[in-house]
Amino acid sequence: MDLTLLKQLVIPSSSKIVLFVADGLGGLPREADGQSEMEIATLPNLDALAARSLCGLIDMVGPGIIPGSGPGHLALFGYDPLMYQIGRGVLEACGIDLDLRPGDVASRGNFCTLDEEGRITDRRAGRITTETCRRLCSRLDQIRIEGVEVIVRPVKEHRFVVVFRGEGLSDALSDSDPQAIGERPLAVNGVGSAAERTAALVNQFVEQARGILKAEHPANMILLRGFALPPTLPAFPELLQLRAVAITCYPMYRGLAKLVGMEALPFCADLNEELRTVAANYDQYDFFYVHFKGTDRAGEDGDFDAKVAALEEVDRRIPDFLALRPDVFIVTGDHSTPAVLKSHSWHPVPFLLWSRWSRSSGISRFTERACVQGPLGTIRAVDLIPLAIANALRFKKFGA
Amino acid sequence: MDLTLLKQLVIPSSSKIVLFVADGLGGLPREADGQSEMEIATLPNLDALAARSLCGLIDMVGPGIIPGSGPGHLALFGYDPLMYQIGRGVLEACGIDLDLRPGDVASRGNFCTLDEEGRITDRRAGRITTETCRRLCSRLDQIRIEGVEVIVRPVKEHRFVVVFRGEGLSDALSDSDPQAIGERPLAVNGVGSAAERTAALVNQFVEQARGILKAEHPANMILLRGFALPPTLPAFPELLQLRAVAITCYPMYRGLAKLVGMEALPFCADLNEELRTVAANYDQYDFFYVHFKGTDRAGEDGDFDAKVAALEEVDRRIPDFLALRPDVFIVTGDHSTPAVLKSHSWHPVPFLLWSRWSRSSGISRFTERACVQGPLGTIRAVDLIPLAIANALRFKKFGA
Repeated sequence: MDLTLLKQLVIPSSSKIVLFVADGLGGLPREADGQSEMEIATLPNLDALAARSLCGLIDMVGPGIIPGSGPGHLALFGYDPLMYQIGRGVLEACGIDLDLRPGDVASRGNFCTLDEEGRITDRRAGRITTETCRRLCSRLDQIRIEGVEVIVRPVKEHRFVVVFRGEGLSDALSDSDPQAIGERPLAVNGVGSAAERTAALVNQFVEQARGILKAEHPANMILLRGFALPPTLPAFPELLQLRAVAITCYPMYRGLAKLVGMEALPFCADLNEELRTVAANYDQYDFFYVHFKGTDRAGEDGDFDAKVAALEEVDRRIPDFLALRPDVFIVTGDHSTPAVLKSHSWHPVPFLLWSRWSRSSGISRFTERACVQGPLGTIRAVDLIPLAIANALRFKKFGA
Repeated sequence: MDLTLLKQLVIPSSSKIVLFVADGLGGLPREADGQSEMEIATLPNLDALAARSLCGLIDMVGPGIIPGSGPGHLALFGYDPLMYQIGRGVLEACGIDLDLRPGDVASRGNFCTLDEEGRITDRRAGRITTETCRRLCSRLDQIRIEGVEVIVRPVKEHRFVVVFRGEGLSDALSDSDPQAIGERPLAVNGVGSAAERTAALVNQFVEQARGILKAEHPANMILLRGFALPPTLPAFPELLQLRAVAITCYPMYRGLAKLVGMEALPFCADLNEELRTVAANYDQYDFFYVHFKGTDRAGEDGDFDAKVAALEEVDRRIPDFLALRPDVFIVTGDHSTPAVLKSHSWHPVPFLLWSRWSRSSGISRFTERACVQGPLGTIRAVDLIPLAIANALRFKKFGA
């Protein structure tokens, strides 16, 4: 649904919406018994809730498309992930919860190793420690360039983020990373005056970095790729007249929520602390986005049993969510991460939406196969937010 | 489906289609026993028909969007309600079955009360009687303005409709109604030459009305809002090569049918008379839109039992519809009106489409929960008309 239409239809209300995202929720059957993680898990609370909720599957981007965390979350927040694309540099900045301002150009950086002739011998500089990365980034962060502010922040091992902050910068830039061994780092290029000017500033930064890192080993140079401006997203709280807050344990998800204009509370250690944080802030907000990583981590590790355990951990906390008495409570994921695939997958993700006003699905399990029997079958993930707003009685009629 | 494609595919036929709209059909379970109005109602005829019909749910506008009667009916008639929006003034004109011509600008009017300084003290003039409204409207209807014909018609209590009829009028006008107590009525404004000219004519009308109403109390002024031209809709009968007729008891629904170019027979007193009217005119038309208000009225009143009774009234008349031997018979609604919500709601609406050529659903009840188990699950309401045309064998192949 067009976001500007939603904006026209929302009305003020004191109702509360909790969106709980179990990252990588959906799975696939394992060969041994043909059962998926959700089917093997003992989920009495989720099963009971699913029976009296609106259930179905959500397709995050489109049939067959494997969503990254960025597009997956944008879709959950109601933004068409094909219309609003998040560039690599911006996603990396989100990943370390680095606040970007409109007009910032962010880039992913790698420390790399060059030989004496300036050719790349290792694109990851032997995966230097995060500690070394931090030290080198703080040196690069000292670089001063006329006409632009440069911010360099470590990520993990050889990875870092550079942000160029200034007036009239462009992100229509080529990478300096040739993505091949034996090549020299490329000069960054841009077409048009803004991009040419930005490319010149970036190239100055790269050359100063080369000088600073000259004596280092193995990280004696940097490679940049994925220059990107933050997407111009209509802000979630203004769009939907909701005081929205993100409660997370990891930077990426907090960063994504901030990208759509949500507030973000300090990181929590675990799901229990997340729940306490929701409770402690329940009066201050209307919309709570709560992120749980365990399901995805286990899926990525290919650890079927750990994913089952993570699901069961979620299930044990469901009564605590319900005790808050939200008007709308949604449990879903940002994509599937089947343990048998050890990665994000294209499979639609189960969801349940409980509210006093939702038609119940009458299914008896919260699983992939049960949810597809729900009233809606498979819907687009972006349609979940309008359904949540409707069930929170925060919409007026369209037309009279 | 694109309407121009449908137009290219329709072929002449003598087949008959009956679209029976039980307004506000869909409901929600009540708390006492977890059953909806349709589930509680005894509907032997509808249940039996559903078993051998194509059944499902229709989403009128989009997930979570609460349809007004205008968008709900446009969708039922096959017009995308997001593409064809009906302005407030036009809808009010429909509501009193006032025939609008292309180029007319219609506006919703309120009689209001001003204090001695010209500030609004009551936006509804103490909800004057409809009788008083009629008397005042007939006075305002006398106003003559150079360059435009003005038509003023009463609606109910303080409400009325003004239509400005003339060449080259614009509806891109601001309201005169500030929608606030203590303010003065606003001058109507428009940007661009057509709108400026129209605004000047409207303001002349408003000033003459002020003079005429000066000595009245409490209705000593008017407020106008929602200026709108009729939407430019392709005419339903030409589009689909159907002689289409509306058989209704209430002005709004007759007005909406006329907006899409259907003919309209005189109002009926009740469903029985509607049925007799269909029978008496069966040879003259191919497409019969029959509207039933009782289900919505009971829902809006929050009267669960009355809605059950209204459904049972519909059920008793089903054999009479079938006795006409229509080639396609559809039973559905223009939106849901759950008694527990006492208002239109966003919930998809059950439908059944019977024809000799429809695949049967094999469901045993005509209810929200049974219909969602139908072959189509939830579909867009605009897809119902193409299915009806197809089942009436009024389409040729697309492509060879």
